[in-house]
Amino acid sequence: MRCYIGLDIGGSKIMGGLYDLSDHLVASVKKRTKANEGVETVLEQICKVIDQLMEIENISLQGIGVGVPGIVKSNGMVAFSPNIPFSNYPLRDYLMERYQVDVKIENDVNCLIIASVKTANRGVKNAIGLFVGTGVGGGIYINSALYTGNGSAAEFGHMVVNYDGASCGCGNSGCLEAYSSKTAIQAYLRQQIKRGRDTILKASVLDDTIIKSSELKHAYDEGDVLVQEAIQRSAKYLGVASASLIHAFHPEVIIYGGGIVDSFGVPFIESIKQKALHHVLPGLVETVRFESSGLGKEESSFGPYQLVKTTTKACI
Amino acid sequence: MRCYIGLDIGGSKIMGGLYDLSDHLVASVKKRTKANEGVETVLEQICKVIDQLMEIENISLQGIGVGVPGIVKSNGMVAFSPNIPFSNYPLRDYLMERYQVDVKIENDVNCLIIASVKTANRGVKNAIGLFVGTGVGGGIYINSALYTGNGSAAEFGHMVVNYDGASCGCGNSGCLEAYSSKTAIQAYLRQQIKRGRDTILKASVLDDTIIKSSELKHAYDEGDVLVQEAIQRSAKYLGVASASLIHAFHPEVIIYGGGIVDSFGVPFIESIKQKALHHVLPGLVETVRFESSGLGKEESSFGPYQLVKTTTKACI
Repeated sequence: MRCYIGLDIGGSKIMGGLYDLSDHLVASVKKRTKANEGVETVLEQICKVIDQLMEIENISLQGIGVGVPGIVKSNGMVAFSPNIPFSNYPLRDYLMERYQVDVKIENDVNCLIIASVKTANRGVKNAIGLFVGTGVGGGIYINSALYTGNGSAAEFGHMVVNYDGASCGCGNSGCLEAYSSKTAIQAYLRQQIKRGRDTILKASVLDDTIIKSSELKHAYDEGDVLVQEAIQRSAKYLGVASASLIHAFHPEVIIYGGGIVDSFGVPFIESIKQKALHHVLPGLVETVRFESSGLGKEESSFGPYQLVKTTTKACI
Repeated sequence: MRCYIGLDIGGSKIMGGLYDLSDHLVASVKKRTKANEGVETVLEQICKVIDQLMEIENISLQGIGVGVPGIVKSNGMVAFSPNIPFSNYPLRDYLMERYQVDVKIENDVNCLIIASVKTANRGVKNAIGLFVGTGVGGGIYINSALYTGNGSAAEFGHMVVNYDGASCGCGNSGCLEAYSSKTAIQAYLRQQIKRGRDTILKASVLDDTIIKSSELKHAYDEGDVLVQEAIQRSAKYLGVASASLIHAFHPEVIIYGGGIVDSFGVPFIESIKQKALHHVLPGLVETVRFESSGLGKEESSFGPYQLVKTTTKACI
């Protein structure tokens, strides 16, 4: 049976999936990344996942697709990853040499847009992804393929939506990420608490760690006015940015994903859409769909699998 | 001799050029559009230009490329043009039937980005165009071809750079065009004159017609403080928008053109660049070039020519 392996390498765990040519998940393996133990250990963990998947009988491996949370160069080098000890590491060549198959490697958010387009069989040629979690990431799918420009396209979180506005972690101000990310939502809540306002999430908000999307959702549903305000503020600027993305790319669909979108669901996307509609030129918006990524956590190897499947021809 | 014809249909004149396969301009013809005399007359003028170009001896016409200032559908219909009486007119089919050659038709700003990339032999795969005149238009060149998305991509003038900011002609606020276009420059000068400030261009600014770029340049060079301020404001927001475009597309080059850029030249592009550099994530900007379109007025048929040349194979 001809198969591909998809690998999602995260800061804490590595998810591997073995897929047949009809997108069916044949087997999956999950291991800890052990990022704090250094490159050699991480590589060992990666290979353990692959080796275990290859124990399935009668498979003929066609290629391996890898998603990494970091900057990946077109030559397959992982230039930098904030949570994994790769620094200019030739991960693609290492895996190609070891397994003697084609290996494709990409930034994990770029894998998300491929997964989003393929999961729901959206039947589109041009799609934009906006992924709202701790930060705001993006993905571009043009002419039925991933588009990365000169390597780092789709950094939508750092599009300027409000010149001289809120401060962003990047050092500038007015970026989308400074309004709509979970980090920005938490910063806004903190600021408002300092000004004397209250929320049932006060302790979690003031905590040093990043707040959970599910906690925000719970407070929102409980009628917490401040949390509702922060979430609506996030949606508002995602709407403004979506309008800019429609003017720039005029895609068939904008796909929304990430922790905040997954937690707040369809009504959140509807708020984004209403704001965007208000800002888009007549004639452009009628044909654009606003959809949820529909990705579950169990499928994080699906994007890397699609990455390699769509760019590597299976042998006959 | 195998040739292509490029046609730039403007609100006041039609420019036609006959090119050989080596991009050499063999002949050119210019006629009035006579837009106010109706569709039939405009078609007659278009055909007169073509017919006259085809009088050259021993040519074998391979195709006709047409640029139109309006909305062009993928089926070759001119849906709407503000200055020419085309309304859902099948211009492509009309010319194909009449001349029995392949005809490609596109929005004129989309032709500009093709022309800009080809004129200077920039040797790039991915480029973004920003054209600053009465409005702000854009063009996208991806994987060595024009990208129009679902038909209307690259409306960069209506990307939101400053939420709740200056009013735009489109009915929204904070659009790039509301800061950087010639219309916006004139509106800003008017507003400041109302507030009691002065400029040597007072009469021209208050005139009902749109001010000339050359007049603005003259006043700028004369040291007119208000005009200098308005131009720097235009450059500032073009810089902010350029940063967003780099984050979105990560192109190899951003190409600047249009009346304002042509008049103010390299120092204007340098101001844009400096502002953009300030807003772009480190690691992204080093590889991006900021260049002038380098298009002269005599070459307006060059983009339409390249449009048809790059998509239609010449017969052997």
